[in-house]
Amino acid sequence: MNNSPIDPHSVGIVETQHFTCCVPPDELHLKSGLTLGPITIAYETYGTLNDDKSNAILICHTLTSDAHAAGYHAGDKKPGWWDGMIGPGKAFDTNKYFFISPNVLGSCKGSTGPASINPVTGKPYGLSFPFVTIEDMVAAQRKLLDHLGIKKLFSVAGGSMGGLQALIWAVHYPECVHSAVLVATNYRHTAQQIALHEVGRQAIMSDPDWLNGEYYGKTIPARGLSLARMIGHITYMSDKSMDEKFGRKLIGKEKLGYDFSHDFEVENYLKYRASSFVQRFDANSYLYISKALDYFDLSEDGDLVSKFKKTQAHFLVISFTSDWLYPAYQSKDLVRALKANDLDVSDCEINSSYGHDAFLTEVESQSKLVTHFLNRLHREKFHGHR
Amino acid sequence: MNNSPIDPHSVGIVETQHFTCCVPPDELHLKSGLTLGPITIAYETYGTLNDDKSNAILICHTLTSDAHAAGYHAGDKKPGWWDGMIGPGKAFDTNKYFFISPNVLGSCKGSTGPASINPVTGKPYGLSFPFVTIEDMVAAQRKLLDHLGIKKLFSVAGGSMGGLQALIWAVHYPECVHSAVLVATNYRHTAQQIALHEVGRQAIMSDPDWLNGEYYGKTIPARGLSLARMIGHITYMSDKSMDEKFGRKLIGKEKLGYDFSHDFEVENYLKYRASSFVQRFDANSYLYISKALDYFDLSEDGDLVSKFKKTQAHFLVISFTSDWLYPAYQSKDLVRALKANDLDVSDCEINSSYGHDAFLTEVESQSKLVTHFLNRLHREKFHGHR
Repeated sequence: MNNSPIDPHSVGIVETQHFTCCVPPDELHLKSGLTLGPITIAYETYGTLNDDKSNAILICHTLTSDAHAAGYHAGDKKPGWWDGMIGPGKAFDTNKYFFISPNVLGSCKGSTGPASINPVTGKPYGLSFPFVTIEDMVAAQRKLLDHLGIKKLFSVAGGSMGGLQALIWAVHYPECVHSAVLVATNYRHTAQQIALHEVGRQAIMSDPDWLNGEYYGKTIPARGLSLARMIGHITYMSDKSMDEKFGRKLIGKEKLGYDFSHDFEVENYLKYRASSFVQRFDANSYLYISKALDYFDLSEDGDLVSKFKKTQAHFLVISFTSDWLYPAYQSKDLVRALKANDLDVSDCEINSSYGHDAFLTEVESQSKLVTHFLNRLHREKFHGHR
Repeated sequence: MNNSPIDPHSVGIVETQHFTCCVPPDELHLKSGLTLGPITIAYETYGTLNDDKSNAILICHTLTSDAHAAGYHAGDKKPGWWDGMIGPGKAFDTNKYFFISPNVLGSCKGSTGPASINPVTGKPYGLSFPFVTIEDMVAAQRKLLDHLGIKKLFSVAGGSMGGLQALIWAVHYPECVHSAVLVATNYRHTAQQIALHEVGRQAIMSDPDWLNGEYYGKTIPARGLSLARMIGHITYMSDKSMDEKFGRKLIGKEKLGYDFSHDFEVENYLKYRASSFVQRFDANSYLYISKALDYFDLSEDGDLVSKFKKTQAHFLVISFTSDWLYPAYQSKDLVRALKANDLDVSDCEINSSYGHDAFLTEVESQSKLVTHFLNRLHREKFHGHR
């Protein structure tokens, strides 16, 4: 990894690496009771791990994202998905910390998922891939950290589904987590979140090309996946950000067409984003991961507060005013449960019109909060004072 | 129409009537420049028209609703869609007023629409049905009122798309409208509203059974229409009302299934509501009417305020705190434009967790506002004092 000659704040050219574990007879025991193995985890790293391996920060991604969080893949013009936050001198400072960014189990971006070849059959798993939960994704990440020799994370950070993974880290492996940065996230999926995902899943599963998940090597269920992505995009933005970006602007037309072709820019935008998405994401992975999200409920036995009784981690919880997919009140509920455990919690609701996407776009305001939070913990841990 | 013997506040058993006009060579001139005829309008009436025909109130419905606003069809157990608001002694008091409730042009509930037989071909119109706008729906309603001999409406009332029709009445036929009750509505469809509709349309049009709209007599595009309805239902409720109604309740299961069958009540609810909807609504009508909504923009030439300069109507504008499909700020923008014309405007944002559906469910709070508004105008008009 070299810093780009043009941008001293970029981690430069990066490569995705792969780690394989749980090779039978060793297997990963899943929350469902089933097992899975072998498992490959795609991941990237940025910065340098220090000698006592105490400066590692795990970066966790969203439903459809991947291991490529920062820097550039050779030949690419677009950097990783959280590049504004990760790099030399940035909020997640690669001059100080070593970052590990794994692709989640169940995805299609290098880690084992339903599109992977089942070594037993020699064919893609499809729906024979066992159901994986957020807890299972985190269990697989722990195998990767064991492999890297990292016993305790200085921090674990993520937005949206990444925040859920960070929460599971703090709750299930309290001895491994010094701090957690939870952005635009919650502690359980609500009825509205489940409903929005369910429409996407029904869109995929009602596409005749889906073939009960056995479409590999044939036509992909592009229509269904495209619809799921369109719904997703609407939920990632806000009423206001859509109005500011598109309003009622027409696409290269003098006037309305009075037919069912596209008239408005927002219609074309959704179509364009959806059609690029179906080329890069696997429909079955969308089913698996969206359902894993819907299954997520840290309060499933009725008690959220007690979940944190074993953790001593420090928390930064960030939400955004216009995020209606993971509304700020959900972060506030989480903060209350953390504080009820007398934990060190910093929380902030950032004023933004960008909706859920704000965790990707509001770099400046997030950076201030993350920098301050990590600097304070860094001083305390490495210099013994506040 | 007889009042039910059981409920003195019901209009009792009602029947839908039909009126046909614009029989060629007479035709309705549409906003698109095309023409349509003949046109049949399904409608119901409640109460008694007074001698000088001055007590008529027009009731306008939503995207997927119909002429059956109040009372019971013979044999039915469920009353019309706004029965809580319309009846003897109710907010829309059939002891005082005569109500006309037409089904919109383009629908499939008795009025002429894409599923109707094109008299020229002897086959259903399908996509050869001309595009109709909210303005065209109102123009057809005016033909019905002419037929009934009603020159001026005491009021025109509607929620959601019904509010848009009421607005067009006030703006295009100012001499015909004494007052308007606009509930959970706006003056132009926003990018988010367009986007949500566009996903529904794409769902229908990407259903292989849609056959470019030529599915009549064959398999209906149930999968696509079902998806459109599921999205619709989510937008009609609120995060809070979904949480209160469903939360994370499981359907007859002890625990999560760890597969892609339904786990949560909210998933079953959406499926149930969607599957009953596809039996009662035409997919092409969904395309036409949703697009008519998206085309609606009273400020399309950039100036909303001047649109109301010819009207002397009195306005009641009601919105709901948790309505995110037609948010309250849109009603407030409309109220500002009305007040800039020095018009008599009463406006109220009702506190409710029911989302957009509140205009159907919050009967008590709406009734107070509507009763007070109509009583005041009634005293002024019929007794010459406030």
